[in-house]
Amino acid sequence: MTDPVVVIGGDAAGLSAASKLSREDPDREVIVFERGEWVSYAHCGIPYYVKGEVDSLTDMLSLSPPEIEGRGIDLRREHEVLAVDADAERVRVRGPDGEFDQPYGEVLVATGARPVSDPIPGSDLDGAFTVHGLDSAASLRAALTPPEAFSVDALGGGEFVDREAAERYGAMTPPETAAIVGGGYVGVEMAEALAAHDLDVHLFQRPETLLPPFGEAVGSEVAGTLREQGVTLHLGTEVERLVGSDGRVSGLRCGDGTELSVGLAVVGIGVRPNVEVVRDTPVALGDSGAIAVDEYGETSVDGVYAAGDCAEARHVVTGEPTWVPLGLTANRAGRAIGRTLAGDPTPVGGVAGTAVVKASDLECGRTGLTDLDEAREAGFDPVAETITAGSRSGYYPGAADTTVRLVADRGSGRLLGGSIVGTDRAAVRIDTVATALEGGLAVDEMERLDLAYAPPFSPVWDPVLVAAKVLNGSLGE
Amino acid sequence: MTDPVVVIGGDAAGLSAASKLSREDPDREVIVFERGEWVSYAHCGIPYYVKGEVDSLTDMLSLSPPEIEGRGIDLRREHEVLAVDADAERVRVRGPDGEFDQPYGEVLVATGARPVSDPIPGSDLDGAFTVHGLDSAASLRAALTPPEAFSVDALGGGEFVDREAAERYGAMTPPETAAIVGGGYVGVEMAEALAAHDLDVHLFQRPETLLPPFGEAVGSEVAGTLREQGVTLHLGTEVERLVGSDGRVSGLRCGDGTELSVGLAVVGIGVRPNVEVVRDTPVALGDSGAIAVDEYGETSVDGVYAAGDCAEARHVVTGEPTWVPLGLTANRAGRAIGRTLAGDPTPVGGVAGTAVVKASDLECGRTGLTDLDEAREAGFDPVAETITAGSRSGYYPGAADTTVRLVADRGSGRLLGGSIVGTDRAAVRIDTVATALEGGLAVDEMERLDLAYAPPFSPVWDPVLVAAKVLNGSLGE
Repeated sequence: MTDPVVVIGGDAAGLSAASKLSREDPDREVIVFERGEWVSYAHCGIPYYVKGEVDSLTDMLSLSPPEIEGRGIDLRREHEVLAVDADAERVRVRGPDGEFDQPYGEVLVATGARPVSDPIPGSDLDGAFTVHGLDSAASLRAALTPPEAFSVDALGGGEFVDREAAERYGAMTPPETAAIVGGGYVGVEMAEALAAHDLDVHLFQRPETLLPPFGEAVGSEVAGTLREQGVTLHLGTEVERLVGSDGRVSGLRCGDGTELSVGLAVVGIGVRPNVEVVRDTPVALGDSGAIAVDEYGETSVDGVYAAGDCAEARHVVTGEPTWVPLGLTANRAGRAIGRTLAGDPTPVGGVAGTAVVKASDLECGRTGLTDLDEAREAGFDPVAETITAGSRSGYYPGAADTTVRLVADRGSGRLLGGSIVGTDRAAVRIDTVATALEGGLAVDEMERLDLAYAPPFSPVWDPVLVAAKVLNGSLGE
Repeated sequence: MTDPVVVIGGDAAGLSAASKLSREDPDREVIVFERGEWVSYAHCGIPYYVKGEVDSLTDMLSLSPPEIEGRGIDLRREHEVLAVDADAERVRVRGPDGEFDQPYGEVLVATGARPVSDPIPGSDLDGAFTVHGLDSAASLRAALTPPEAFSVDALGGGEFVDREAAERYGAMTPPETAAIVGGGYVGVEMAEALAAHDLDVHLFQRPETLLPPFGEAVGSEVAGTLREQGVTLHLGTEVERLVGSDGRVSGLRCGDGTELSVGLAVVGIGVRPNVEVVRDTPVALGDSGAIAVDEYGETSVDGVYAAGDCAEARHVVTGEPTWVPLGLTANRAGRAIGRTLAGDPTPVGGVAGTAVVKASDLECGRTGLTDLDEAREAGFDPVAETITAGSRSGYYPGAADTTVRLVADRGSGRLLGGSIVGTDRAAVRIDTVATALEGGLAVDEMERLDLAYAPPFSPVWDPVLVAAKVLNGSLGE
């Protein structure tokens, strides 16, 4: 009998693979080891849960454990895989009843990523949150709820929630001032979420702009929006450490010596891939530190696959390995590997680094190479143009300024990337740019795209087309 | 001295060409002959003007005559070109002061299209509108305004409006019942516009579905929405004729013998290209009846170009000539021809037939080949799948059902077209499909697109990706 397929990690990549494999090859045994309680949850929903727009923790579960088991998957929660033994083709597992070895036919490493916090001493204090995982989300919402209004059941976590931690935070009086350390997605979304709870929110960002991967135009619009919501921005300011009192966050100290008293801190300064299970194996890591994979998601060791936030992927524009830990990439790669394991070799697909983020009514998107230095390093001669155009025909109610920046290679005219910001359907428009990248379009082809036009939805020349026209003009100079 | 460039028609294609040429080559003389008063107007805005969402006729002008002249263009309104003499390289023109010949170096035929109405006898009665041009729009809005509330100045047409017609309609009591003949874009948009004026609106459509180019799934959703607005739909019903009394519409008669009393009728059963000026010339027409052009918009006669609603274009999917009279195509081809005439040969680009239409809060889009018979005629073996998926993460407020239908070729897997309907950002999503068509993507490549994901804007798998996944599965069977 063939040994089972073992999946390490019960979230997007792991469960997508297990589900697809079980469906395509119901006779193949699949075991999913998940070290925690939670499986199949939507990490991207956490800021909206903290804000209160999403009601219950369980709303963010794509699949419940019984649903997963109903698909024929052997799901083992509270089982941590300690190491992969690639020679012996087995994994070492620690479960509630002790440690054991589990032989595998193939193994998928889908261990995800974890927030970086060690550069900020004090991140382990009570009241400091990295907002990773639903227990952390529950504790943060508890910390924002006045004790008299708090009930652990209102968190909506059912049997899974870490009640002890939630109840401890629920018993405390909510702070008046909060710090956000980091101005990426997490920082921007959490700043909005905390401001909605009427906290005095201070956001600290080491670079001079918010959301650096989206470029300055987007960053400065988002900064304006956060300020309108009462968030105090400390741009170009490095946080040196969180300061505690009685084991609890009471303030922070910046590199320039300034100090601020805060009752709560959210640290969102990046994530790092969880690759410990393959540390002492021949499985190769890429330059990014994530696991290197081929176009089918297989690592340097036969039969060992990796997908999701712990794995690299091929960049659509450069063709080189890159590490962009995002939800769709994980789902897509997991699904493809499930199909491959079922006997139908399926590429995991490339990534363009497409990302969108909401900041109040602003919709921000980016895809591909938008940083000129990065584009030069990849061997291109980048030219960029930024335009602002209406989102609808000027005479139609609701038209809103939409700013688009496109980057192309001067020699070939090839589109390299783009970003967008606006209030009216801007985010979805980045998909046009992402699709053009996948199609390898040049900017003059992009300018001639037959996009949709009707006054309520777009002007005759969609903002994306206006940007392509202007950039194409610059390329011809 | 070189003879001037002559442009026949002062709307999207003609003025885009003239503007681009004047800008790129300011020394080249450009004359634009326009037979009417209005130039550079947004035809697509008319339904919203009739509804009252757009305030003034002049809101729909992209450029005023002084602005056009300020670009160095010799604009001659009320000048009708009667014929092109391609051998002598001159046009015969009738202006306010009589007829004359104008020699040209190159000529651009940008004469547009006109509504078909002759299949419906009685379309020339007072109170019957084909809604073509701003004077017709002004008269229709006048007809919907009670005499005591009417003022010709409130129409917002300034010096250009046909005051006599508008005042005649403004003096009449608005009808209680109106008929719409035709259930395409014009019919659907005008039904909504008239229903907003509290008329009892009846829409007659010969096919069994509304908006046939969008497919049945879209048509039936739109039918539901129009019914909710109180519009009575008569599907599968042919209108035989409009019936008049004292020269004014008083009713209509259907092919099945039923009759209905109405005080106003809008006939929107299609358009036909205006090609009379080249009728007795060697300029070849295509099978569609529109003017055949090469990839630079040049006709079969050297130096004679055609663009906009009177000209064919190459279909992005079939590579064959097609005729899809829409606004962006006209602007784009005009602009490209302007550049070509300035010495920089520029392709006019293909068309995918991308179109969007709003029906109340429904957003409908389509692109490419969506009709299976049409796809078969073009040599493909089409397979289609239709899915309904959420527009946002299921747990995020505002997620709405979005229905996507994609069509692909079984043999090659190539995407051929698609349509979409939904209430939350559905229209803009069709641009992803249109861009994939331009890039020549196969459905498995489409399934792997790195599209944007964030809970407020899209689920992990965007509805377009869900459709690609399902269709890709069917292709593999």
